[in-house]
Amino acid sequence: MKDGIRVDRVELERFCQGVFSSLGLPEDDAAIAASVLVAADVRGIASHGVARLPRYVRGLKVGLMRVDAVPEVLRETATTLVIDAHGAMGAPVSVRTMRQIMRKAQEAGAAFGAVRDSNHFGIAGYYAMLALEADLIGIAMTNTAALGVPTFGRNPMFGTNPLAFAAPADEEGAFVLDMATTVVTRGKIELYNREEKRLPEGWAVDEAGRPATDPAPVLERLTYQKGGGILPLGGLGELLGGHKGYGLAVMVDILCGVLSGGALGPDIVDVPGSAARVSHFFGAIQIEAFRDPQEFRRDMDRLLRRLRSAPPAEGHERVYFAGLKEREREAVNARLGVPLPRNVYAQLRELGGVYGVPLPAPVAV
Amino acid sequence: MKDGIRVDRVELERFCQGVFSSLGLPEDDAAIAASVLVAADVRGIASHGVARLPRYVRGLKVGLMRVDAVPEVLRETATTLVIDAHGAMGAPVSVRTMRQIMRKAQEAGAAFGAVRDSNHFGIAGYYAMLALEADLIGIAMTNTAALGVPTFGRNPMFGTNPLAFAAPADEEGAFVLDMATTVVTRGKIELYNREEKRLPEGWAVDEAGRPATDPAPVLERLTYQKGGGILPLGGLGELLGGHKGYGLAVMVDILCGVLSGGALGPDIVDVPGSAARVSHFFGAIQIEAFRDPQEFRRDMDRLLRRLRSAPPAEGHERVYFAGLKEREREAVNARLGVPLPRNVYAQLRELGGVYGVPLPAPVAV
Repeated sequence: MKDGIRVDRVELERFCQGVFSSLGLPEDDAAIAASVLVAADVRGIASHGVARLPRYVRGLKVGLMRVDAVPEVLRETATTLVIDAHGAMGAPVSVRTMRQIMRKAQEAGAAFGAVRDSNHFGIAGYYAMLALEADLIGIAMTNTAALGVPTFGRNPMFGTNPLAFAAPADEEGAFVLDMATTVVTRGKIELYNREEKRLPEGWAVDEAGRPATDPAPVLERLTYQKGGGILPLGGLGELLGGHKGYGLAVMVDILCGVLSGGALGPDIVDVPGSAARVSHFFGAIQIEAFRDPQEFRRDMDRLLRRLRSAPPAEGHERVYFAGLKEREREAVNARLGVPLPRNVYAQLRELGGVYGVPLPAPVAV
Repeated sequence: MKDGIRVDRVELERFCQGVFSSLGLPEDDAAIAASVLVAADVRGIASHGVARLPRYVRGLKVGLMRVDAVPEVLRETATTLVIDAHGAMGAPVSVRTMRQIMRKAQEAGAAFGAVRDSNHFGIAGYYAMLALEADLIGIAMTNTAALGVPTFGRNPMFGTNPLAFAAPADEEGAFVLDMATTVVTRGKIELYNREEKRLPEGWAVDEAGRPATDPAPVLERLTYQKGGGILPLGGLGELLGGHKGYGLAVMVDILCGVLSGGALGPDIVDVPGSAARVSHFFGAIQIEAFRDPQEFRRDMDRLLRRLRSAPPAEGHERVYFAGLKEREREAVNARLGVPLPRNVYAQLRELGGVYGVPLPAPVAV
């Protein structure tokens, strides 16, 4: 691997778990949080992977994420569940909520849960994909710190508000949609900034709501909440459907924030020294309540196979479906090890030193 | 009204109902189908309104939509329902299914239904909005005839596949998202063609998957299934998130087509002489199963009010939220009458003559 190394997945999880444990997180919680982080790297979504470990460590150390929080059930029925996470780490409370929702869906046919006063939960797709093992359709969403500007607006009013949807197939694996409802995430703008590239039109606006193509001021204004921000999926105005992406982002905020009674889009800020305190929404739909799961998976195979074997456009090699790239990457990484950039590996080494957790050695590729 | 007239809403519904009845549709079905059609005009979505009446009449006459179809329950649980519409008109079976889903959700907390072998059901928002009266969150989707081209592809593999989501507010009415998951609908391309305008880049591709800006050949190729078509929300490639819109379109197809065991995206064609035979998906989530509905609506008010009073971008007057424009239009049309272009009114006159149904007189404005 040029400019990076690979490490064994289990070793890397064990390492993250060790760091989390050292910070006082209960053993189970530490294992879950580690699994969610590493899953992002394994699926090629490095922005949500162990590169975030230093940020989590800081959050746990200063108490933005509370290691001793005891999530509380606010309301529960046979098909619904509302949890106040009381500032806990996002991943453990999210995995437990999703698993309860799955059990409810297996009993009742469908179930939904909302979690408030939580923290970053990593990749939304992780939770949606938990449903796959149980022949359920999985749904996961979260609101996030405000950085998205509504159609015709100029100030951030919602987050990247990702939504994930997973449905099981047979030989084709699964359809796994995991998308920010903004046109891009902040991480993408940061990447363009580091590479000193101009932003494509349709990604961001300045403090007057005009198209912005210089990434540095966009990021600075977001950090200091001076207006401007990232556009919803569909871009500027209504011409390419920006109002649809805006609508999807607000839909996610309603299901996460309003339904749980948690903080709402414009109030969620994510700056050093303040907790994000986001809300999540989870759902599971039992396939057998609709039709034979084997037949469902067979039809899924047929659909997904047709999509990925559709003739490509001139200049392109393949048509994908949601989750296919990540699945292929996961297969490669299972064989060769999880790829890590050298600077991320160096950060892990430092954390390992501080917390006395041995760093996984690079694997030979 | 320049270049158009206005008619009374109830009179217009009665007229459509009369025409449907004359074609052999049971009285209740005729009333429902009329209500759904007219609701589109009332909310300013004329493309799905009574302008489609001639098409429905043709479909009923030649038996593409079967007036005597008896929808059959394929599977039912306390939270789910699967219906085979056996080629019935879309609106009546859809309203009845949504109402059953709502009853189930009021009992169980959440419920979902899938309908297969159905026909065009009009605006998806109509069904999602039914939930509002009952303090439920409403969801409605449908797959439609293939015209959407996947990211990096060149042939249509899915329809406009709209998804609607409605959540009740108090003074602010409701949040009602009703969006095609393609960047635009075919109707929009037809409009540009009539007005002899070039298509914006990001709307359509030609038979090689290259950007297409001349609307006429795009429409012709769609009609004769010669490749090319409309792009998903997010446009060409991945730069502006086209793969997300593509993912949403397939998600709708999975929930509608795969979950019901109905026809799937690429197989649904909509040409004279063949039925569309689409599938729908409906859902309802009971707010009270999560929190006090009054508190929910109060927080919805707070969110929606902040969105619509957000400072507008330079050169714009207002920020909206999904459903606000339609709600304002509905208020105007309730006062002044439903607007109809003269050519649509002329078509209705013709149908009224054929079926002996008196046409509503224009109201004085």
